[in-house]
Amino acid sequence: MSISGFSLIGGQAATAAGATFSGINPATGEKLEPLFHTASLEEVEQAAAAAAAAAPVFGALSGKERGVFLRAIADGLTADAEAIIARAQLESGLPLPRLQGEMGRTTGQLKLFAEVIEEGSWLDARIDAALPERKPLPRSDIRSMLRPIGPVVVFGASNFPLAFSVAGGDTASALAAGNPVMVKAHPAHPGTSALVGAVIQKAVAAAGLPEGVFSLLFDAGVAVAQAVVKHPAVKAVGFTGSAGAGKALTRLCHEREEPIPCYAEMGSTNPLFILPGAMKERAAGIAAGLQGSFTLGSGQFCTKPGLVFLPGGSSEFVDALKTGVDAMGGHGMLTPGIASKYTEGVAERVKSGKAEFVAGTQAAGEGQTPVDCAKGQAAVFAVSLAQFMAEKDLEEEIFGPTTMLIYYDSVDELPAAAAKLHGHLTATLHANAEDAAGAGKLIAELETKVGRILFNGFPTGVEVCHAMVHGGPFPATSDTRTTSVGTRAILRFARPVCYQDFPDAALPAELRAGNPLGIMRMVNGKLERE
Amino acid sequence: MSISGFSLIGGQAATAAGATFSGINPATGEKLEPLFHTASLEEVEQAAAAAAAAAPVFGALSGKERGVFLRAIADGLTADAEAIIARAQLESGLPLPRLQGEMGRTTGQLKLFAEVIEEGSWLDARIDAALPERKPLPRSDIRSMLRPIGPVVVFGASNFPLAFSVAGGDTASALAAGNPVMVKAHPAHPGTSALVGAVIQKAVAAAGLPEGVFSLLFDAGVAVAQAVVKHPAVKAVGFTGSAGAGKALTRLCHEREEPIPCYAEMGSTNPLFILPGAMKERAAGIAAGLQGSFTLGSGQFCTKPGLVFLPGGSSEFVDALKTGVDAMGGHGMLTPGIASKYTEGVAERVKSGKAEFVAGTQAAGEGQTPVDCAKGQAAVFAVSLAQFMAEKDLEEEIFGPTTMLIYYDSVDELPAAAAKLHGHLTATLHANAEDAAGAGKLIAELETKVGRILFNGFPTGVEVCHAMVHGGPFPATSDTRTTSVGTRAILRFARPVCYQDFPDAALPAELRAGNPLGIMRMVNGKLERE
Repeated sequence: MSISGFSLIGGQAATAAGATFSGINPATGEKLEPLFHTASLEEVEQAAAAAAAAAPVFGALSGKERGVFLRAIADGLTADAEAIIARAQLESGLPLPRLQGEMGRTTGQLKLFAEVIEEGSWLDARIDAALPERKPLPRSDIRSMLRPIGPVVVFGASNFPLAFSVAGGDTASALAAGNPVMVKAHPAHPGTSALVGAVIQKAVAAAGLPEGVFSLLFDAGVAVAQAVVKHPAVKAVGFTGSAGAGKALTRLCHEREEPIPCYAEMGSTNPLFILPGAMKERAAGIAAGLQGSFTLGSGQFCTKPGLVFLPGGSSEFVDALKTGVDAMGGHGMLTPGIASKYTEGVAERVKSGKAEFVAGTQAAGEGQTPVDCAKGQAAVFAVSLAQFMAEKDLEEEIFGPTTMLIYYDSVDELPAAAAKLHGHLTATLHANAEDAAGAGKLIAELETKVGRILFNGFPTGVEVCHAMVHGGPFPATSDTRTTSVGTRAILRFARPVCYQDFPDAALPAELRAGNPLGIMRMVNGKLERE
Repeated sequence: MSISGFSLIGGQAATAAGATFSGINPATGEKLEPLFHTASLEEVEQAAAAAAAAAPVFGALSGKERGVFLRAIADGLTADAEAIIARAQLESGLPLPRLQGEMGRTTGQLKLFAEVIEEGSWLDARIDAALPERKPLPRSDIRSMLRPIGPVVVFGASNFPLAFSVAGGDTASALAAGNPVMVKAHPAHPGTSALVGAVIQKAVAAAGLPEGVFSLLFDAGVAVAQAVVKHPAVKAVGFTGSAGAGKALTRLCHEREEPIPCYAEMGSTNPLFILPGAMKERAAGIAAGLQGSFTLGSGQFCTKPGLVFLPGGSSEFVDALKTGVDAMGGHGMLTPGIASKYTEGVAERVKSGKAEFVAGTQAAGEGQTPVDCAKGQAAVFAVSLAQFMAEKDLEEEIFGPTTMLIYYDSVDELPAAAAKLHGHLTATLHANAEDAAGAGKLIAELETKVGRILFNGFPTGVEVCHAMVHGGPFPATSDTRTTSVGTRAILRFARPVCYQDFPDAALPAELRAGNPLGIMRMVNGKLERE
């Protein structure tokens, strides 16, 4: 499969001769062919106009019809999986089994959203029948359901070149809800983006859909991103990435003439609490699990546990962690840029003297970076709970394989410590039965701080399922009411519309008399499929 | 019942001796007793701290328990209805039957939200069971449901002193979802606010709830409003009122250190389309209905139809409307401030020459205001579709009993005209069967522009029911994904939280094994009550 290096504007290939950039092999630093061309602002305009034109047609399809289209994308990805994964491996340096797994997650996610829209209860269809005899005033026939929000812009993430990128969760959920999608490709994996984009473009054509249902935009800088987010046809934005970029994007969305929702998942440090009973019973096991979790994918996951609250002392645990981490090699970072940011973050933390460096793979002189961050080597810091509470910036994420041990004296300190945290994606408790019985206050605090709480597990590895919440209060995300993983993610790209006293034929099929689509509906307050 | 004139800070009466203001009888301009005292910033702090302390306790109650509390508020309002309505009549000038109806709506709304939380399906409880044998990786037990978002600030609206004020829809839905509420009383009806606030304060005490579940704040200016919205304990804001105030409030929410959702319902002009067949068959009936709707409550409804698209000519309709409107007296405006803004708006439109004045109750010289706006007299303007499209500001709301006729030549022009509209709360079609059969394109455009579309009715009179949507794209509201009327309004004040591999006893009852509360849940993708 050849890669042209140009944006996809609906069914067309772009031709703009703007600024160029290349994919880079992070293992070698070598530039990969071909050159990629920044879309022109005219091409952005064309893509947005095509999306706007496609919206009513695509949005009027039934869930069953759109489900067929989502499955066709999944099948197309499966057919081209080898080439896509090979390119993703070159551009990301991620190991083959990880990318194979990620491809399975990406296609599985598309099929799961197909199931959701075929089943139809997500539409929240409601009917309140007319009450013509009601006194003092009759009631009209009132029906409502969720409808597509309108064209969506999706920003691919660097750390999941498949599952959070061109055909990832944001795209799948936005398409499932009935919205055209314009993806701004992440410059760290442009070739992967082009290959996946071509699969979607083909599926659009094969399904006979308006070409504006999908476009893919390349951008060497930020001009294309800004132009497309500001475009009046765009009605929502999905993003996964850094706090800086996420906040800037959210501001851009809010400052438009017509403000629009921005769903920015900006990562977090995912506090993990080891309670005393669990520490007594499973110190070595928890240490091994933590080591595996915070270094998985070189620590480049939004759910990496980066704050570990543990009882003071805990020498068995610390020794096990230290031995394990010191023996690890580095597995490389996703991009040279991420590698240098990780290096800076670790160096800064060492230099600040706010936390003690306790484990890593390389000895170093005072004030020097103790590990080879460019290679993705792990670093563990430690601090007392009092120090942690006094230094607010210790809560901030360093993207990469580093974590921080925070020693507490008594579990009674933990609810207050949790209450001082800002928003995170996850929190984890390691607790035996006795610990759990006394953890009610801590759990109540954590419920207000994160989107997902785990017992005796590790937060990396986010299951794509109906009940998943991958979200949380600011600054973990820009919208605590939502999740970017799991089937609830579809709700981000819909809005309710109400139809009063409509002739049956003018209603969407989902709301018609006799429930022709057989979906779950709330009729006069009762859920039923009749 | 006596009114102290001080804010209610949880269970306490405030004592601040800040700037004072009075309720005003709009019919006479006379100041009403007592003086009301602006809350101090210390009192704001106390109210917010009490709300934060109450949040976990109140949020942990089951829906059945909170339902009892909502019903107790409704019963308290009913018990004190006579005094509350008498004061509301003095402060708003609204007629007694209207206020009696509004009281019924307010108590009915509280009881409807009680039913919703007793039934429980709104929680969107989901369970994906563990799959320990799954290859290549086992699946954890993953459960999630909606949880309270946290303390909510509600701004009372001037035009519904009961149903959109202290115990109105925003308060009812925020309490139903399990959140403490701080109400900033509208200065146009402080006495009504005090009486209703006292009822809620009593219900909180009688239910043995933490006093911070409810506070009521008076403010002669905007300092209290700003302080409470900026308070870190506050997690969402509900507002109904003007576009200017709503936009400022939304900005304030977005610019906080932790941005929070702001639900501002800012009104609209509610386009109404009379299609040719309906005009031929029912000109006089539609004219009478329109007259009743745009002048109802002196046109002081967010759903007032202010843009009427009709076939060129339509002399029977225009004559009937003109005769009807010219014969109307004025019924007064809610406040002197609203009366003078209405006067300015009408005068400005006359002076601009952008639309022709065609009906009203008073002759006037060129360039003069043609009606006595201070008395709430009606004014009808007219314009061609081409002129309307050329003058963007003709789409803007003038709050009061005025509407604008917009003459089109052909129904084929309407989809494009609708596509150029900004967001509104409602759109209405008057159409016979033949009109309706050809209106698909127009309806598709309107679906993207409004929250509710009506057939052959009038948009004033918003039913409180499950299927209602009182919302719409910006600038009608600040968040097109939501409604401020109807039971879906509760979703504004909740966020999903996920529990992974939790011991059963540590889960909220709604997610426990065996479904002890008997609520509808999605279990492995299937909705069931088992």
